[in-house]
This record gives sequence, structure tokens and C-alpha cells, in this order.
Amino acid sequence: MKKLIRDNRTKKAELLVDETIFSVANGYLGIRGTFTEGYGTDFEYNQTYLNGFYDYYDYFYEENFTGFPQRGQKFVNLIDGQLMEFIVNNNAINISSCEVLSLKREYDLSLGMTIRRIHYKTVDNYEFIIKERKIVSSKYKELIAIEMSFESVNYDGEVLVKSYLQESIKKESKGLDPRIYNRDTRHLEITEVLTKKSRINSRTVNSNLLMTSSIYHSETLEYEGYNNKIVGKKVFDIKEGNSINIDKYIIHTSSMYDKNYISKNDKVNEEVSKLTFNDLLDFQKSYFIDFWNIAYIKVESDEFIESILNYNLYQINSSGGESSLHNIAAKGLSGEGYEGHYFWDTEIYLVPFFALTNPVKAKNLLMYRYNTLDNARNEALNLGYSKGAKIPWRTINGDETSPYYPAGSAQFHINSDVSYAIIKYYETTNDLEFMIDYGFEMLLETARFLIEALDYKNGVYHLNGVTGPDEYTTVVDDNYYTNQMLKYHFKNTYDFYNEYKNNLDKVNEKIEVTPEEIEKLLDVSNKINLPFNKELNIYAQDSSFLEKKKLDLKSIPVEKFPLLLNYHPLYLYKHQVLKQADTLLSMVLLDFEDESIYKDSFNYYEPITTHDSSLSKCIYSIAAFRLGSLEFGCKYFKEVLETDLLNIHKNTQHGLHVANLGGSYLGIVYGVLGLRIHKNYLSINPIVTKEIKGYEISIIYRGSEIKFKVGTSLEIESTKEVLIMINKRNVLIDGNYKINLQQ
Amino acid sequence: MKKLIRDNRTKKAELLVDETIFSVANGYLGIRGTFTEGYGTDFEYNQTYLNGFYDYYDYFYEENFTGFPQRGQKFVNLIDGQLMEFIVNNNAINISSCEVLSLKREYDLSLGMTIRRIHYKTVDNYEFIIKERKIVSSKYKELIAIEMSFESVNYDGEVLVKSYLQESIKKESKGLDPRIYNRDTRHLEITEVLTKKSRINSRTVNSNLLMTSSIYHSETLEYEGYNNKIVGKKVFDIKEGNSINIDKYIIHTSSMYDKNYISKNDKVNEEVSKLTFNDLLDFQKSYFIDFWNIAYIKVESDEFIESILNYNLYQINSSGGESSLHNIAAKGLSGEGYEGHYFWDTEIYLVPFFALTNPVKAKNLLMYRYNTLDNARNEALNLGYSKGAKIPWRTINGDETSPYYPAGSAQFHINSDVSYAIIKYYETTNDLEFMIDYGFEMLLETARFLIEALDYKNGVYHLNGVTGPDEYTTVVDDNYYTNQMLKYHFKNTYDFYNEYKNNLDKVNEKIEVTPEEIEKLLDVSNKINLPFNKELNIYAQDSSFLEKKKLDLKSIPVEKFPLLLNYHPLYLYKHQVLKQADTLLSMVLLDFEDESIYKDSFNYYEPITTHDSSLSKCIYSIAAFRLGSLEFGCKYFKEVLETDLLNIHKNTQHGLHVANLGGSYLGIVYGVLGLRIHKNYLSINPIVTKEIKGYEISIIYRGSEIKFKVGTSLEIESTKEVLIMINKRNVLIDGNYKINLQQ
Repeated sequence: MKKLIRDNRTKKAELLVDETIFSVANGYLGIRGTFTEGYGTDFEYNQTYLNGFYDYYDYFYEENFTGFPQRGQKFVNLIDGQLMEFIVNNNAINISSCEVLSLKREYDLSLGMTIRRIHYKTVDNYEFIIKERKIVSSKYKELIAIEMSFESVNYDGEVLVKSYLQESIKKESKGLDPRIYNRDTRHLEITEVLTKKSRINSRTVNSNLLMTSSIYHSETLEYEGYNNKIVGKKVFDIKEGNSINIDKYIIHTSSMYDKNYISKNDKVNEEVSKLTFNDLLDFQKSYFIDFWNIAYIKVESDEFIESILNYNLYQINSSGGESSLHNIAAKGLSGEGYEGHYFWDTEIYLVPFFALTNPVKAKNLLMYRYNTLDNARNEALNLGYSKGAKIPWRTINGDETSPYYPAGSAQFHINSDVSYAIIKYYETTNDLEFMIDYGFEMLLETARFLIEALDYKNGVYHLNGVTGPDEYTTVVDDNYYTNQMLKYHFKNTYDFYNEYKNNLDKVNEKIEVTPEEIEKLLDVSNKINLPFNKELNIYAQDSSFLEKKKLDLKSIPVEKFPLLLNYHPLYLYKHQVLKQADTLLSMVLLDFEDESIYKDSFNYYEPITTHDSSLSKCIYSIAAFRLGSLEFGCKYFKEVLETDLLNIHKNTQHGLHVANLGGSYLGIVYGVLGLRIHKNYLSINPIVTKEIKGYEISIIYRGSEIKFKVGTSLEIESTKEVLIMINKRNVLIDGNYKINLQQ
Repeated sequence: MKKLIRDNRTKKAELLVDETIFSVANGYLGIRGTFTEGYGTDFEYNQTYLNGFYDYYDYFYEENFTGFPQRGQKFVNLIDGQLMEFIVNNNAINISSCEVLSLKREYDLSLGMTIRRIHYKTVDNYEFIIKERKIVSSKYKELIAIEMSFESVNYDGEVLVKSYLQESIKKESKGLDPRIYNRDTRHLEITEVLTKKSRINSRTVNSNLLMTSSIYHSETLEYEGYNNKIVGKKVFDIKEGNSINIDKYIIHTSSMYDKNYISKNDKVNEEVSKLTFNDLLDFQKSYFIDFWNIAYIKVESDEFIESILNYNLYQINSSGGESSLHNIAAKGLSGEGYEGHYFWDTEIYLVPFFALTNPVKAKNLLMYRYNTLDNARNEALNLGYSKGAKIPWRTINGDETSPYYPAGSAQFHINSDVSYAIIKYYETTNDLEFMIDYGFEMLLETARFLIEALDYKNGVYHLNGVTGPDEYTTVVDDNYYTNQMLKYHFKNTYDFYNEYKNNLDKVNEKIEVTPEEIEKLLDVSNKINLPFNKELNIYAQDSSFLEKKKLDLKSIPVEKFPLLLNYHPLYLYKHQVLKQADTLLSMVLLDFEDESIYKDSFNYYEPITTHDSSLSKCIYSIAAFRLGSLEFGCKYFKEVLETDLLNIHKNTQHGLHVANLGGSYLGIVYGVLGLRIHKNYLSINPIVTKEIKGYEISIIYRGSEIKFKVGTSLEIESTKEVLIMINKRNVLIDGNYKINLQQ
């Protein structure tokens, strides 16, 4: 089953959530699942985004300190080409003028297409059925295609169709929420309205990125131009039982991706105008056959796990990775939460999916970091350091743009997170060329910054004054996660250098690698402080964490969550309370070995974790699976799966929680299958549970396609010879392998 | 010598600094030392302030968190009544149209009056001499009086005099400095221009405080009204050698202090109009005789110590304390730095001066905290606590208004700072009524907040996640200063309660004091953690401070100071570097006993202190005096004295460093005389140095006037019997006492 179906969700809150759920994107261009005929309501707000297409603006601080980012960035809602009104007796047919008799929405994941059928009844008792199919093309990345059908059930007469290309309409304003943009400024201005060509040229106000947006239709409309819009009109005569059918094509091209973005727009227009909507669907089909061939995960279960999981994978794939000029925003292309910024979410929660199913996209994502490495070098200087690179905590164009450093710039761990992803990508793909040309340079530059940030005392290295993943505890000393990831980062950088130093002349010439700093990497890696509490048999989240009072989460009423919207940061910081997995995250990522400490740490931290971040439950679910708490693992795994579909964080209307989608992949692959990537082999420790009775997962590892089938038995197929450690036993697999699993 | 004289400082930078130095105020109303004839330049910006007269405005945060103050406050520049132009041949005579042949400025501290004589030459070679005398009346608190004389040296002809009452002119905009208001909004709007009465009514835009400002002159002018000003005009015929003499009186009354502020304005006007400028000077004289009688400090020295010191005392007295509706702003009434906000500066650096010389003003200052105690209670709730009071870090109206909590709300020590001042005030004055009616309630409410903030572990109390006085290290655990002051605060609260519990029925009824919480005070006081480092024999600034790298201050170029304007906070926070005295401050305030630890702490912290705050050097100077490092003590004491007069922090143009002025008082009284207040006695440990050969200091202690004369001998006069411990020997003094001092 590759379909998602939702019926009769017509309340405002449902509509807004479903705009996100039914958003369509191809990693490059994305559009939310608004109704093409519009809502006619005050919350109507069509949104189309081009990945990385952003504007900047001046930040304002009541107390402005040196080194604070002085410019914000946000991705920019494009010129809207979607709206197409059907007007009967001067009334546009939509939810605000009509009663909705039925609404059916469907996401066809085998075509990357949304389908909608809505049955309206006007106050005059006329009934109309609108059917819409929408794709963002996998072949023509710049193209949105919409097939509209307007059927009269019982009306005979004229219907005026008005189809727009226009400046996006501003939405309702928002309350106090640090996760949402809080200005009311226009960031895209129209420079030219070319009515005859049904095209609008625009530019971002400050970053000066240029865009051409054009529309055309399967019917000949008469276009009228205004200063901020073009309206195509046509009057149809319709009879009871008949339909008006119009396809609309919207093409956005930008100077960001194409120097000749205007002629590119023409070219796409020309090519696509020769095709029908169904021709485009053929391309979709072929693209998604390839995609699902490797990405599809079968799950034998009484529940909807398989369909939700694959929906999630589909949306991860839609969110980015099409080019090394962009990354993946926290909400992908599905909404404006977090302003289209890229975070560590990509490297920790999403790169594994791409590395294992589509290494080209994984490389694109890492190359984005390489392409912005100079910005990260500048940020290191800005923070007072003499060299190295500090990956920005949040950014679009590569410059740090986090205005609240305690939960931003202070998260030095991002340097090791990106390095971890590079190392894992390399282990998964064996892409040595990438490592030599780009990867090692990033590993070392990010390490150099951290080396300078370290303190050294009595034979031990400390990393003081930083924030770990958990944002309810900020600017602390020796965050365990950060130090553990740094240890891994440094050791692997050291090893890679020693293995390939003779191949590193080019990078050596560029950034002057010294033997001393390479030795230092090993020394730090051996002597970095990892705060351990013997009494509790756990690693302390940081050097002072265990000294604080625990916050009694059970005594806090439900409506006070997420805590960040209800408590002063100082209050949260004074307590043992976690927004998200921190110590446990490194245990999961680095497959912590000592089961007793792992378990005690889990039992200590999980009850004081609010999971107010959507990056949390997937990690605890994996840890639970690994520790044998299958029921607990499943419970969290299902909550992870359903985060957006059930709107668990109550903000899905602002976009998909893309890292969490990645977390659902990690949940099944790291958690259930127990897959771990190593340099020369894989390891798995598959489990099945009451809820997950069996599953099939395919991956690509160093050019081999490997398929794992787990149920009462374990079957492995591989296109090449591969060494897999199965439940701690090495097995060399070439072709097929099958054993019975103990239940 | 009670005069300050400065000649020929006519450069822009000098003029701006001297506006501050020659600002005149009476604690209630203040005006900067701009030229009454104006400058005619783009930096002309007349500023008049009424203490506590403020507006609020919405704060903006790029990431807005719950509990952050959502409103800023700033004091408001009043309607300007000062400007009076002398126009010759259509040119106003001022520094922009004329050459300045000479400029002499004088501050007569025996009258609280500034005197200025400036000799102008026009491009047509006409010469004029303007003489100005200016006071802010000590008798009529609402009154500014200016005596102007315009003398022609070689010009015969018409002079047009234009005297203004007008909306203040906006100044130049500013760069990035967190200490300065960074908006460009008008906060006072004119509601009525009453030309006939030469009066303008205005109101603050958001806080809706009302104000009436009126002017009148000793000459009859013809008034013209505009929408934002009134201009009084008169044409004089002048002959070579003759002068035009006009006195101008400006009266500001506000709804903040008088319900009937309009009739109050009339009344002052009526009374003052019967008086001459010299009559007003008689009142000044009598006021300042009383003031200097107790406050004047004689210093026998080769340098200008005496005159500078007494200038400083004069300016402290001018800065506030006239009413319990206001406090003392960081810059007093002398400039707009820190937006007129009240900080802990008052209680720690200024209350001692008032308590020892003018207890009524000291009480006013403490009563301001009592009058705003409900705001502090609300702030405790806002921060997530269930009870008690959290004194705001910066405020005008009593609400917390610090937008950057790490160097703001997180400074929990302010609760104990205010309590310390209350206790010291009580010890100095024996004002038991104040304690029973107000003082104890404040001690307990501020303690209750802190009790809830404490952590308890293994028999020790910890105060985690707070910021101490040093703002280059923020949000840390167990700041020594904070904990030590809390210990003192709790112990004294406990003692007071036990001594007077039978008198505390009223407060008991109001805030329900429980025996448990009183016992808790003692328990905490006994068991609060004071982080000590045995190896170094010092108290650690906080639990992690000594783990950090030291910042090598000598390697940082001079132009990089203050560091806060040149380094990202995260960089500073990661290093051992102090903005200001922290551990040493508590040692000074609480007269730390163990000399070896005191000395080692001094030697450890002083070299890593930048003194980027003007609250720092005075403390180190006192410590040095107490530890016998007389040369060091004197060096810093002199720098403290000269901070504003020599513009050492390069920002005296934004106003006087009032806490530092208080620090110069503490320097001589705590540092040199070694005075300490105890409950039933005083102690002194007087020293003399090469630079300070002798001195006379008077104080009021529990109703006794006590004068200390120190030189080769020590003489003490007291109006009542008093017990004084002199160099650790108790002496009961009644009348005169004299001993020889060992050199």
C-alpha cells in the first residue's frame, strides 16, 4: 500500500495540518497542500518554496553583543501560481461560500501525487465537485503541475474561471513562539509583470536572488496584468453532469540555480507544453519505481506501520538533497517553521537514510557543508578563535544565523555531528575520492576549532562552556554527548590521515596539516573527559547536571508542554530536565557497548526527558530496542511514526518534522534491524516484536544492494560479496543467506 | 576647595564629556551641562530628566521565550526649556557660527551651581561674552534656574533673543553597544501648547505619565506658539561694553509625584516669581552648608584628591534619594546611559554614603524597593517560583526589564544585595521601626525566593544556574559571592526574627512567617556551599571557574577593551577573565577575616580582572588598603576618583558612573579609614599613605555625629557615647578622643 487517504477533514485546524501532510515537493521545489480553488478564508495562505532561496534581514537585539549574528535569513514564499477560482453567479466556489458535502484526499506515493475530491453545495443548492491532482515533477524540477476538474452536479450556466499568478497573500499573525518568524516584512518584490507571457519576475529584497515564475494552462485564457498579479480568465458554459477540465503548469526558475534562469524557464515551458499531465505522470512513475525499489520497507504488522513508515520515507526524499547548493530544512519544503533553516538534523537524522538508499543525495548534502566551509571558517574567527571552522547552528546561506546562542552557536557538537556523517557516509559508500577532495578537509577544519576550544588540566581535556543537544540545559562544561562525538570525530580523522596521508597533498597544501595537530587529535581522543557517575553507574550529561534538582514532570499539567513555551529558560536550566535525548543519543549513534551503563543511563534520563523536541523519541525507541525493552521501543517507535500524521507536537501546520521522519527510518533500521555500519563490514542484530512481526529492508552498501528479510527466519540477499556480523557472528554473504531466527 | 574648574575644552568630545561633568541635579530633577545658547551643531541634544519619569515600550526578540521581559523601560527626556539664542545679524551666536576665544567652566560645589564664561568671535570680527550660572533648586525641586548675561565687546546694534520651550531635538544615532538604547522612537508627546502661559503639557506615550513644563523670564518676552514649541522673543539694542541680562526659570511638574501637578506648577511659578536668582542662591547656600557639614571629607595630599573626592560626593547626592518613588539610576540624572535604570549599584555602592551622612535618603532608597515589592513578587512567579520576591536586575517602575538574562535576571545575588543594604542601614541607624514595618518583610520575601532556588545534596546547599557580579562569567553553579551574601542575608534575617518576633505580628499576618522557614534560614546559612580551592588557597568564583583557561589579558591590545564590545560572550564565558570584582567584592563587603586567603584571592583574581565595569577598581583598592598594599590601593583609588573627570571608560558622555562615585566614598571610608559598621559598635583600622597623609571624615551613627581626624595622630569626636573598636581594641568614646598613630 503506497497510498495515504484522509476523509472529511474540513475544520480550519485540520486543513492547516493537511496542507503539510499533502505538501508535494521534489527536494528542490515544494508546494503545500492548499486547495487550488482557494479557501476564501482569512487563513488562506498559499506557500511555495524553492530550497535555499532565501532573503536576509537585519536582526534586532535589545542588548546587542559583538559576535551575535547581525543578519537573519529566511526562505521566501514564492510568487503563487496555484490559485484558480471557479466563479458561479459572482461567487467563488470554496469552503467559505459553500457547504462541503464530502472531502476525500489521497497521497499516491507511487507517483508522488496528491489527489483531492471535494463536493460543494452553494447556498442556492447548486452542487459542484472539484477534483484535483497535483505533482511537483521529478523530471522537470522547476515544474508544478495541477490537473483540475470542475463538475456541475445540478447547475446549468456560466462558470468564470480565474487563474492567478500573484504575490503571496499574507497570513494571520502569530503569538509568542521562538520557533516561528516574528516579523511582518515582505522579502520578495516583483520587478516585472509580463502579462502576455503570463510571467512575473521577482527578486529577494536584500539577498538579491532573482526568480522568474510563469504559468500556462491547457485551455486558452485571457490574461490581465496588474502591478502584483496576472489573472487568466475564461467563461465556460456548463451543464448538469458535465465538467470543466483545466491543467495548470507553474514553472519557477531562479538565478540561484541557473545563471540563465529566464531562458531556462522558457525551455522548461517549451518542453513541458508538448506534454500532457499524464505524460508527466509517466515520468513520475518511473522515478518512483526506482526510488521505492530500494527505499521501500515492508513491515508485517497488524497496524498501519508500513504505510506510515513509507509515507515518512517518501517525505524525507522530497525534502532536499537535489543539489549541493542546498541542504534540508527542518521542515523540508512543507512549511515555514524554523524559517527554512538547515540544522544538524540533516547529518544526524537524515544522511543515514540517503547514504543507505541514495548515496548521491547523501553526498550532495555533505557537499553543501563543503561549499559553505568558508562561512564556517569566518564564524570560527567571529567567535574569537584563530583558526578552523565552526559549522553554523542554523543557516541557509552558510552564515550562522542563530540569534539565541545558548541554544544556538553554543552547540559546538555540530562540528562533530557533521564529521560523524562524513565518516559514516565514507564507511557506507567507500567514496575515497570524496574524502580526499573534501571530507578530510572538513574533518580537520572542524577539529581545529574544537582543539582551540579545549581546556587541559591534569592530563585531561575538557570542553567547557558549550551546549549539548538537549536545549533545556545550556552552556555547560563537558557535555558527554559533545565530548564523546568529538572523541569519535578526532580518532577517525587521525586514522584517516594516517592511512591516506600520501594522498592528501592537495589539502595539505591548502590548509597546511602539521604532524603535531594530527598527534593532538589522538591525544585528545584518548584524554577527553567523559563525566561518569559511579554511584548511579551512568554518564553524566555534563559536569554539573547531576547536581541539579530533578523537575517532577508528572506534576506539571499537560498544557504546560512544551516547557519552552511555558517556563523561563533559567528555570529549566536549573533543573534536571531534558528537552530531548542527549547522553543517550551518543550511545545510540556510537552503539555504546557496556549494556549495564547503557541501561542505567536509559533508565535515568528517559523519565526526565519531555521529548519536547521531535528529535528525541526515535532515539529512546532505538535504545529501548537495543536494550531489549521491545514494548517500550515499539510504543515510542509508533509515536515517532505518527508525529505528523497525528499532529502530536500540535504544530504540524508549520511543516513536517523532517528529522523525526528520519528518526522513524533510524527506528526500524538501527533499532529493529540493529544495523550498524563499519568500515569493512556491516553488523545487524535483528529483532521482531509483537507489533512488528517481520520486515524487509533494502540498503546499498559499497555498491552492493543488500536486502534483509526478517521474520521467523532471517534472509539476506546481496548483489556482491559482503561481510556481515549477525548477532556478533561474522558471515560472508554472496548471493543469498538464510537462517532461522530464535524467537 | 569646593570648586571644579575646566578651561577651553571646546572639542566635540570634550563638550560631550563636560555636559556630564557639569550636569546639575537635585536628586529629583537634573539637566546636563549643555550651553544655554545652544551649539548649533548636529550633536546638540539638550537633556533634562525627572527621576523615575519613564515610558515603556515593547521589547522585540528574534527568539522570544516565556518569562523574558516583554516590555522595556526608559527614562524620558523632558520638554527642553533651556535653549535661549542670541541672534546677531541673523546668526545665532554659538560654537558653530563663531570662533571661541576662551571658555571657562566652573562648578561651585558650595552652591550646587555651574558657572560658564565663553568668549565668541564672529566671522565679522564681532566679539561677545556669554556668562551663564545654572542651578537646579534645592528648595524648589521642580525648578531649574539659569542666569544669562550676553555682553558685547565691540558690537553696537540689535540682538534678537529667542528663548524656547520645545520638544527635545533628537541626537545622532549610535553604533553597536549593549549599554545604550538602540531605538529611535519618541516617548513623550505634547498634548497641549499653552502659549500665553508659556507652558507645554505632555505625556509619555505608553506609560501615560503626565507632565507640565513652563518657563518664564526676568524680561518680558513676546511668545509665539507652534505645535511643538513656544518661542519667546525680544529685540535688544546693545552697545559695545554693555550686556543683556536675562534669567530663565523652568519648572517641570508631573503626575508621577503630584496628583495636582498642574496647580503645583502654578504654585512654584508664583512663589519663585517673587524671588531673584540670588534669592535662590541663598537657599542653595544654606542647603549645601548642611550637606557639606557632614559629607565633606578633608584630605591632606599633594594631589587633587580632596577636590575630586568631594565633587564625587556632591554628584552622588545629586543623583537621587529625594523620594521613595524613585531610586538612583546608573548614570544618576546626568545622562542617558543604561536608560535611567536602577541596578544593585544603589544598595551596594551608594546606600553606605547616604546611611552614614543622610539616613533619610538612605531610607527613601530602601523604601523604593519596598514600594515595588509586589512587582518583585510577580517576577518570582514569572521565573517559575511559587513564592517570595525576586528584585529586578534593572528597572524603573519595579518590573524586571533586562532583556539579556545571563547578565540580568540570572543575577539572583541582587536579592541579598538589597538585604545587605537593609541590614547595614539598620545597623547604622538603629531604625527598628523601619525594620519591623518594612525591612524584615523584604529580607524574608527575598530569602524565600532564594530558598526555593537552592539545591540540596549530601548535607550541602547549592545555588546553581545563577550569575554573580562578574558578567564575563554567567549562569554558573555556586557563585561564591552570591552564596556568601546569601549566607549573611539569611543569618541576619534569622537573628532579627528571633530578636523581634514578638513585634512582627503585622508582617506575620501579611506573609505568614513559619517557624520552619526561619529555621531553614539558619540551616542554609550554616550549610551553603562556598567553593574553596585548597591548592590555591582561594575561594573559587564558582564551582567551575577554576577549570577554565585564563585569558592572557596582556596579549590583548588596548583597543580591544572593554572586552564586551569586542568578543562574543561565549568566548569570554569560556575563559578565566573578570569584568569586575566578584569574590573580592564579598570579601570587602563582609570584611573577610582570614588574611592569607584574602591575600591569595586578591593576587589570583586581580590580574585576570579587566575592570571593564566601573564597579571594580574601588573594590580592589579597598582590598589592597586592607591587605597593606598601600601603593596599589592608592593607584586604584586615584583611578576610581578620576573615572569620570578623566573619562577613563571613554563613555562619560553618556553620564556619570554613579556607582563608581560611591566607590570613591567606600575607598576612603572602608579602605583608608577602615570603617566597618556593626550592630552595636563601629570599628576602624585607619591608615595613612604617602599620597594620603591625613584626612577628616564625619559620619552619623545611630544619631551621633562622629568625626574622625587621621594624620600623625587619630582624633575622634562624637556627639554621643559610642563604642568604637580601633585597630581591634574597644574604646568607648564620648566627646573627644585622641591617640597617636604609629607610622
